[in-house]
Amino acid sequence: MLPKDIQRISILGTGKIATHLAKILKKLDFDLIQIFGRNQKNARALAKSVEAEAISSLQAIHLDVDIIIIAVADNAIETVARQLPKDCFVVHTSGATPSAVLSPHFQDYGVLYPLQSFSLEKTPNWSNTPIIVDANTNDKKGQLMRLAQAISPLVYALDDAQRAQLHVAAVFANNFANYCFHVAHSLLAEQAIPFDLLKPIILETALKVQQYSPAEMQTGPAIRKDENTIERHLQLLEHQLEWKKIYELMTLQIQQMK
Amino acid sequence: MLPKDIQRISILGTGKIATHLAKILKKLDFDLIQIFGRNQKNARALAKSVEAEAISSLQAIHLDVDIIIIAVADNAIETVARQLPKDCFVVHTSGATPSAVLSPHFQDYGVLYPLQSFSLEKTPNWSNTPIIVDANTNDKKGQLMRLAQAISPLVYALDDAQRAQLHVAAVFANNFANYCFHVAHSLLAEQAIPFDLLKPIILETALKVQQYSPAEMQTGPAIRKDENTIERHLQLLEHQLEWKKIYELMTLQIQQMK
Repeated sequence: MLPKDIQRISILGTGKIATHLAKILKKLDFDLIQIFGRNQKNARALAKSVEAEAISSLQAIHLDVDIIIIAVADNAIETVARQLPKDCFVVHTSGATPSAVLSPHFQDYGVLYPLQSFSLEKTPNWSNTPIIVDANTNDKKGQLMRLAQAISPLVYALDDAQRAQLHVAAVFANNFANYCFHVAHSLLAEQAIPFDLLKPIILETALKVQQYSPAEMQTGPAIRKDENTIERHLQLLEHQLEWKKIYELMTLQIQQMK
Repeated sequence: MLPKDIQRISILGTGKIATHLAKILKKLDFDLIQIFGRNQKNARALAKSVEAEAISSLQAIHLDVDIIIIAVADNAIETVARQLPKDCFVVHTSGATPSAVLSPHFQDYGVLYPLQSFSLEKTPNWSNTPIIVDANTNDKKGQLMRLAQAISPLVYALDDAQRAQLHVAAVFANNFANYCFHVAHSLLAEQAIPFDLLKPIILETALKVQQYSPAEMQTGPAIRKDENTIERHLQLLEHQLEWKKIYELMTLQIQQMK
């Protein structure tokens, strides 16, 4: 086996991404050196599970690692970065944060962004989790790509502008779609109808766009301009004016699809 | 085997629901008697595939059937119903249309509404397609339930008010979620990013609500009140003010989730 560019890894953070990344990297035989968490108990628990050292102060950070992965909340990335030595190779895991927040602090820096909706309870299916990478040099980008490819077959190099666009797109595809499911769930609850009735169509809608473009798959009263049904739906939403507003806006937009 | 209440079936319509219902009923050994379609060619094609007679005038309708299923466009249901003899047992397949549109025309009437996003190209997975039934008498409702149970294990009796609420909920869960996927698709296209990157998270979002409630699964900048990210996203949407409006409205609503 070829020597890996990156073998010794420290992870800053103990949340969902930090936890799942630490575990898969350990499983893939990388050496997890340190796990940093402000909360000592969380840091210790994760560190123990991947045979790393737990630290709760960044002053205790080891420098003899190949990469430091900052996997903390987006608004804490810069604060953490500011406390690290300049000559580490440091990446963050955020879709929303430009790599520019790292550039003043490090010679080599980048992004390793796994695009998936993670839960703490559920082991991610890494083979179906795209990983988006970026780095300030081609050499480092190559190292990150090889690291990412060890984790997932779906590795893409995107720059800051592309990753930002991908992130807002993911908000529509994941957060807003899920909110639509939530409105549906609430509407059913009002009439004591089990949410089970909608689970198959939700799954089918997601399966269809795996194969066809969403524009081709658009159905419903809006796209077929069925004004009677739209009118009846709006009446049913009179008691929840914010959902009615969403209904009206979405319907208008769907009617204008090309 | 017990004799079936309903054995001889005619179907009015040649669209997606008419086609898929005719085919599954034929496969289940029901007798398809007549297929009505205004377009003679379509009627003939479907009738041939289920060994029924094709008719393109409702005056040619046979009365010696156990049920007539009106599976035409919602706005044509009443026009069709008006032309049928009063003593047939007639159901429509619409989620959006009250059974009341049939009541002036028939002694026995009801609804058989398969809740799924059908495509003409794809054979439906009936074992995962809920069927919602209703009828004007308990006897007819029982007959419909047994007919529906021959097709799918997921059969529910709901009244008009419940079905209407289910239908508007399905618009959120299916049509609006799909529109969110479309916006995501378009945003990626602007930056030449393949839609493949979002397919896994779309599938995962749909899979999660099979098991957990959408409210529990809500993630993203809105729910964690990450104003920096929201601000950056709004800037990225400046060129498409309608999507920006959707973003703002959805974000506000998600922030108010309990």
